[in-house]
Amino acid sequence: MAKAKKKATRPKPKTKTAKSTKAKWVYSFGGGKADGRAGMKNLLGGKGAGLAEMSSLGLPVPPGFTITTEVCTYFYARGKKYPPALEAEVKAALARVEKSIGARFGDAANPLLVSVRSGARVSMPGMMDTVLNLGLNDETVEGLARRSGDRRFAYDSYRRFIQMFGNVVLGIDHHLFEEILELHKEDRRLNLDTELSAEDWQRVVEGYKKRVVEELGKPFPQDPRDQLWAAIGAVFGSWMNQRANTYRRLHSIPEDWGTAVNVQAMVFGNMGQDCATGVAFTRNPSTGANEFYGEYLINAQGEDVVAGIRTPQQITVAGKNANNSDLPAMEEAMPQVFKQLLAVRERLERHFRDMQDIEFTVQQGKLYMLQTRSGKRTAPAALRVAVEMVKEKLIDRKQAIQRVDPASLEQLLHPTLDPRATRAVLARGLPASPGAASGKIAFFADEAEDRANKGEKVILVRAETSPEDIHGMHAAQGILTTRGGMTSHAAVVARGMGRPCVSGAGELRIDTSARTLGVAGKTLKDGDVITIDGGTGEVMQGEVPTVQPAMSGDFAVLMGWVDEVRKLGVRANADTPADARTARGFGAEGIGLCRTEHMFFEGARIVAMREMILAADTKGRRAALAKILPMQRQDFVELFRIMKGLPVTIRLLDPPLHEFLPHSDAEIAEVAKSAGMSVGDVRHRIAQLAEANPMLGHRGCRLAISYPEICEMQARAIFEAAVEATEGGKSVVPEVMVPLVATKRELDILKAVIDRVAAQVSRERNVKLKYHVGTMIELPRAALKAHEIAETAEFFSFGTNDLTQTTLGLSRDDSSSFLDSYTRHGIFPTDPFMSIDVEGVGEMVRIGVERGRKTRKDLKLGICGEHGGDPASVRFFREVGLDYVSCSPFRVPIARLAAAQAELAQVARDK
Amino acid sequence: MAKAKKKATRPKPKTKTAKSTKAKWVYSFGGGKADGRAGMKNLLGGKGAGLAEMSSLGLPVPPGFTITTEVCTYFYARGKKYPPALEAEVKAALARVEKSIGARFGDAANPLLVSVRSGARVSMPGMMDTVLNLGLNDETVEGLARRSGDRRFAYDSYRRFIQMFGNVVLGIDHHLFEEILELHKEDRRLNLDTELSAEDWQRVVEGYKKRVVEELGKPFPQDPRDQLWAAIGAVFGSWMNQRANTYRRLHSIPEDWGTAVNVQAMVFGNMGQDCATGVAFTRNPSTGANEFYGEYLINAQGEDVVAGIRTPQQITVAGKNANNSDLPAMEEAMPQVFKQLLAVRERLERHFRDMQDIEFTVQQGKLYMLQTRSGKRTAPAALRVAVEMVKEKLIDRKQAIQRVDPASLEQLLHPTLDPRATRAVLARGLPASPGAASGKIAFFADEAEDRANKGEKVILVRAETSPEDIHGMHAAQGILTTRGGMTSHAAVVARGMGRPCVSGAGELRIDTSARTLGVAGKTLKDGDVITIDGGTGEVMQGEVPTVQPAMSGDFAVLMGWVDEVRKLGVRANADTPADARTARGFGAEGIGLCRTEHMFFEGARIVAMREMILAADTKGRRAALAKILPMQRQDFVELFRIMKGLPVTIRLLDPPLHEFLPHSDAEIAEVAKSAGMSVGDVRHRIAQLAEANPMLGHRGCRLAISYPEICEMQARAIFEAAVEATEGGKSVVPEVMVPLVATKRELDILKAVIDRVAAQVSRERNVKLKYHVGTMIELPRAALKAHEIAETAEFFSFGTNDLTQTTLGLSRDDSSSFLDSYTRHGIFPTDPFMSIDVEGVGEMVRIGVERGRKTRKDLKLGICGEHGGDPASVRFFREVGLDYVSCSPFRVPIARLAAAQAELAQVARDK
Repeated sequence: MAKAKKKATRPKPKTKTAKSTKAKWVYSFGGGKADGRAGMKNLLGGKGAGLAEMSSLGLPVPPGFTITTEVCTYFYARGKKYPPALEAEVKAALARVEKSIGARFGDAANPLLVSVRSGARVSMPGMMDTVLNLGLNDETVEGLARRSGDRRFAYDSYRRFIQMFGNVVLGIDHHLFEEILELHKEDRRLNLDTELSAEDWQRVVEGYKKRVVEELGKPFPQDPRDQLWAAIGAVFGSWMNQRANTYRRLHSIPEDWGTAVNVQAMVFGNMGQDCATGVAFTRNPSTGANEFYGEYLINAQGEDVVAGIRTPQQITVAGKNANNSDLPAMEEAMPQVFKQLLAVRERLERHFRDMQDIEFTVQQGKLYMLQTRSGKRTAPAALRVAVEMVKEKLIDRKQAIQRVDPASLEQLLHPTLDPRATRAVLARGLPASPGAASGKIAFFADEAEDRANKGEKVILVRAETSPEDIHGMHAAQGILTTRGGMTSHAAVVARGMGRPCVSGAGELRIDTSARTLGVAGKTLKDGDVITIDGGTGEVMQGEVPTVQPAMSGDFAVLMGWVDEVRKLGVRANADTPADARTARGFGAEGIGLCRTEHMFFEGARIVAMREMILAADTKGRRAALAKILPMQRQDFVELFRIMKGLPVTIRLLDPPLHEFLPHSDAEIAEVAKSAGMSVGDVRHRIAQLAEANPMLGHRGCRLAISYPEICEMQARAIFEAAVEATEGGKSVVPEVMVPLVATKRELDILKAVIDRVAAQVSRERNVKLKYHVGTMIELPRAALKAHEIAETAEFFSFGTNDLTQTTLGLSRDDSSSFLDSYTRHGIFPTDPFMSIDVEGVGEMVRIGVERGRKTRKDLKLGICGEHGGDPASVRFFREVGLDYVSCSPFRVPIARLAAAQAELAQVARDK
Repeated sequence: MAKAKKKATRPKPKTKTAKSTKAKWVYSFGGGKADGRAGMKNLLGGKGAGLAEMSSLGLPVPPGFTITTEVCTYFYARGKKYPPALEAEVKAALARVEKSIGARFGDAANPLLVSVRSGARVSMPGMMDTVLNLGLNDETVEGLARRSGDRRFAYDSYRRFIQMFGNVVLGIDHHLFEEILELHKEDRRLNLDTELSAEDWQRVVEGYKKRVVEELGKPFPQDPRDQLWAAIGAVFGSWMNQRANTYRRLHSIPEDWGTAVNVQAMVFGNMGQDCATGVAFTRNPSTGANEFYGEYLINAQGEDVVAGIRTPQQITVAGKNANNSDLPAMEEAMPQVFKQLLAVRERLERHFRDMQDIEFTVQQGKLYMLQTRSGKRTAPAALRVAVEMVKEKLIDRKQAIQRVDPASLEQLLHPTLDPRATRAVLARGLPASPGAASGKIAFFADEAEDRANKGEKVILVRAETSPEDIHGMHAAQGILTTRGGMTSHAAVVARGMGRPCVSGAGELRIDTSARTLGVAGKTLKDGDVITIDGGTGEVMQGEVPTVQPAMSGDFAVLMGWVDEVRKLGVRANADTPADARTARGFGAEGIGLCRTEHMFFEGARIVAMREMILAADTKGRRAALAKILPMQRQDFVELFRIMKGLPVTIRLLDPPLHEFLPHSDAEIAEVAKSAGMSVGDVRHRIAQLAEANPMLGHRGCRLAISYPEICEMQARAIFEAAVEATEGGKSVVPEVMVPLVATKRELDILKAVIDRVAAQVSRERNVKLKYHVGTMIELPRAALKAHEIAETAEFFSFGTNDLTQTTLGLSRDDSSSFLDSYTRHGIFPTDPFMSIDVEGVGEMVRIGVERGRKTRKDLKLGICGEHGGDPASVRFFREVGLDYVSCSPFRVPIARLAAAQAELAQVARDK
């Protein structure tokens, strides 16, 4: 049986493939040297590259080797076959490890045990993570017992190995193993694992092995080499499992990057009280403070920390105090090893010039480094680390700019709890990911997603999270767990996503079958509203009011550097004075899109607007428009005053008129009454205006062509406001933007109207007016005819929302039902409404830019879709040569940072 | 006053313009020679070119001159100014006419009188037509009286002149003149114009002149040169009047063609019983028969015939008999002149090699030719004339092909009355334009248009029509008039539009204020249904069933020539066996688009379809699809059999699923019951599937990506049908078409499904299947990525309907409310859904073609939108290099002819 298995899982050097290659498939490390180095992340994965670099630096790394990501790519490209040379290279690398350790793989007397871990370019929680203690079998376990002098440890290790390997390699549900353990404990009337003796564990191992035969119809593999190849195969297989696919999709990680496999000699943190395992960050990943920050567990294996099963202890005394922990810090419990670790911390930061996330194990008082990588951090932490490292002269300003993920700035803009609000605090957990969030309790990820899709705000409440919960975490406003620390799955993932998270709130009791959350005699139900504060760890009943955060000093410093570097302008889409003030606060350099229709929905305006729409003729429309004029003018006066001479682009009325009409019977009756019409006539007009596809209907400039009086009123409001807002002799120069243009002629007709009104206002007020007339480019035809349109337009603003809708034939409102499956199928790399479809919509933009500039060299070019605040899109817009992007006020800092990064990337490309 | 006027209306040779030109602005004709010729239509207009050519041929043409269309273009380009040299050229040309006639313009003793007529490249009823008798004033009228020896004639001519000039040049409503005449007749107790004496007319002239002063505050211009320049200005001004603009828009005539002005010595058909005026066609314009066909009036001026005020007499005895007329034919009444006219007819047909539409006047027994032009004709006439002229060796086959307007073939396809149907004939008129039509009576053009826009079928019923009625005629199913002949406005325009028309149905009495139509004691009301037969002149009560016409022998002959010439293939869009049979009958070379969804709406299918949509899971959907499979398969078997090996392109399900769900409460209840669901659940599902913009929603290939089982079922039905329909060893090779593709990946995913099903069917049936998989190109992104998509697609079919919607951002369903104003504003030259927007959508097609063929040289390219049956679009598709067009079965002949014409045009271009 084992023989047969061997054939199936070991690579077979078959007939030589046509494309023979001399590639090196395996990179060794350990003993103060390494084949690889930190820069080889793409080939070795993040973990492999880190291990190689640490080895070269002379840090204490258990020896091992990395099977490259190219093997993974080869594996999937050739129908899951390995390169022929791989087996020999693995054998040789393993021999080097045996030599270095002085033990042999499968040697009954002195067995080498290894860990097998996946390791992609970026950390991916979706993949198979780790198999420990590989190499144990019925014989070597005895050797381990003898060598360690701890039979209990040896059999505990063996049962852990069978369980882990059985689960992740053989696909046997871990509950099937835990059941055996639970039954054994019941039989023996034992409560804690620690109470089990060596014999107990031996019995459990027997049970485990029997269960494997029951499940698979064949015994647990005893040959360590079979074990090794099966584990390697499982790592590569896990690259394509559903969780990994989901994770890649959510994080836009290409499939063809592949994963590496790291095989490394085992060291044991669970061989006694002089053993430990831990994870740490070289700076505080939550605040960015330059303080050592980490957690460890004595007498434990690495997975115990991350899994959040035992609440871990702090590494430093400062950390212990900050967390109000009673458990001894490593600084106290293992002062010598702690000192070594501090030195490693120093060394790594100086070497990598970045905050590191490290894993270590202490075996019988000796420190081993198992991982180093760039540490994930919150946005405030990223900012602080970047700014402080410039001050520490570790990096320069440009590097600092590149260190902060623009999208992460959104976290800075998350609301925090209003300090004046009263809080009914239910419980306290760890401040795992900053920001405050309120929502209705959801106990299951699927349900959280479903309800969120229906527009409900939910807080996902779980005992602990796992990669299966990612979609629910993504859909939730915030995440609350009752177990696990700051480095638990929930905490790490929530920080990455920018979701507020409170972890390890142990006072709370979840009853998933009853769907209740109990605390201190209270019982909350599924759907009850709670608030979490990821900055303090507080969990509160009901919704607590929030406030917008003040920007930190680090933020201002970095943004100063950003503005020195970037050339792409950043404006805001702002329709109201409040928006405009926020935009200015965030550093917007003007308004790129003022949607005038948003001014028509309030109070007296909607009444006049409806009057206009229901009017029987031009005269009636003019009368209604005359009522709107002063209000609209006042809007513009305020905007111009707030923007103090910065450019303000005002778009003429865009939506179809039916959007302003009432829908409910009561409203219709009211409108009919105030318009002096019959309800039937109002209904008739509503029916007349209804459209099958409003997106492609009577809207944009088409309205102004049909009803030039609307354009006249808006132009008058703009120009009169410009006169009124002129202060200190500095005249306001409004930019009037005509939407949904498909032909030059449309723009010509409306520009004539605008020019005429400008001339009138100019005469009436006896002032010289300066203004620009331009257009949105949001239809494919407009992009194609940009050379003609630019004869009239002084500026273009690409409306990439509509341009995406028309270029892809995809309604933003209707696509949510299938877009998810589209990204899952790899049809779109990401939601094209979030990040511009560079190949399709991007080409339309490129055509528009090239043709427009051909006609008018100084044509001002901007973009005012959602994409203006998306870093990847901003990069594209810089590349294609736009002058500015315009985005929602809260995304202005993101766009500024992204623009600076795009500039640096462009400079690098141009070199 | 007259002095001042002179200054205002005569061109002033001012300071020389920068762009001085040596252009000749005026072309003389008459006396057996001419400056111009027939080929100079663009410069001289149709009328001017015809007059020049007839002069050169030595036909009796009164002398005159033509002011070119370039003057019109100049006039509009330079702010309504004339070229400086014009005045001198007109003066010289006028002098030549004076010399030729032996009379002088404004000479009180022997005055020259002229007509002033507009004349564009093509006849345009929308423009100012004619001012006759120009040159008359208070002095010259006496001269005319003396020279003609007929004082009554002279003053009748003067009053006609004042009325005509007053109306068309000075803009005074003709009712204001008619009122004076009516009052005078009442005063003098006279009934008929013929009863008025010279003195009466003199009095009327006095009245007219007073009315002019009242209306304009200045006297009627007495200086003939002022009259002339004012008339010339009025002709140029009429080029831009609203009627002319409407006409141009409806007939796609460019604004910059301009009109010419023809000034010609007057001859008089109204100087007595030896005088006459008439219009004729060298062949029968209704049937195309080689017989002289025309109408005339004795003692009348030209306008009297066309205006339809007096019912005219036939020219030939044969015509008189055919029309059951009691009035003498010209052949009888003026045999000598008739013989001259017959000789002219022969001469003109041999010379122009085409059927001519001529105007003539007989003055005191002498024949004068006033116009010749290519005669408008019905589609059957065009066919017959073209085919017979080839037999007569007047033209060759290629010329014959170019002689028939493809769009006019639609008339051939108009239904005719079912000969077996009973007909309640109300009245009989003239068979003015062929085809039968039923509809509700509408008495006003505006109303006809309004009601037609709301989907009502109307028959426009008028005493007579005028250019103001064109929009109503266009909107109507057919036109019925109670006055006027075969060459009346109604008849000419209806034939041009292909609308059935019965004219001069004098038994009918229209009461527009009561909105009734009375005949033989019956009274029909506005909205009552009538039927007209434009082929027989019958008017019937109610709706009479119709049948499709059999194609004439001429049609088959011409189509044979067409197919020899054309290279562009023509297929049909056909979803049912009936469609497919019609398509074959019309010569379709395959099915370019079979819309499978049309097969899902009937009986048991819609039930299964709804079951599928309401199913909770894949299993449920599969069960429902299994019920549809055999029905769908049977559809395809029939189509394959009818098409006998010709290519059949089957498009996978395209519309969003909600289109199949019920809307009414009753239907929803029924569906819920049959599906075993609650009404609430069905409603929920309906709400869930509802879309804001279904055009851009979950449809096309997106459905198949979401529900591959639908694609599987359809592929299986196609392949099983292909096997079943294979006869005599000749295997059916279906073309499977994937709709709404935006990315190569979508097509890849679905091609994999189709290939898998094909392999399954192949195995099950133990046959080798041949098939092609291709895609619609109907989204801008697909055109842009055609090079990638063509890696997978074996053929493209451009879906120009959707491509127009997305490229222009214009919903076909919603654009009707403003498209009209868009073409009126010159934004689109014509409805882009009728004729492809060459510059915008056309460029997308061009991009798709170029990029697609770059990847795959032998990529088969077609188009299957409405544009496939539009001649102008077909020309573009030929130019851009498509392999075939596909259109509705009834438009297949149009497409074939258009394709042949496009080929000839392409050959001419390539030379």
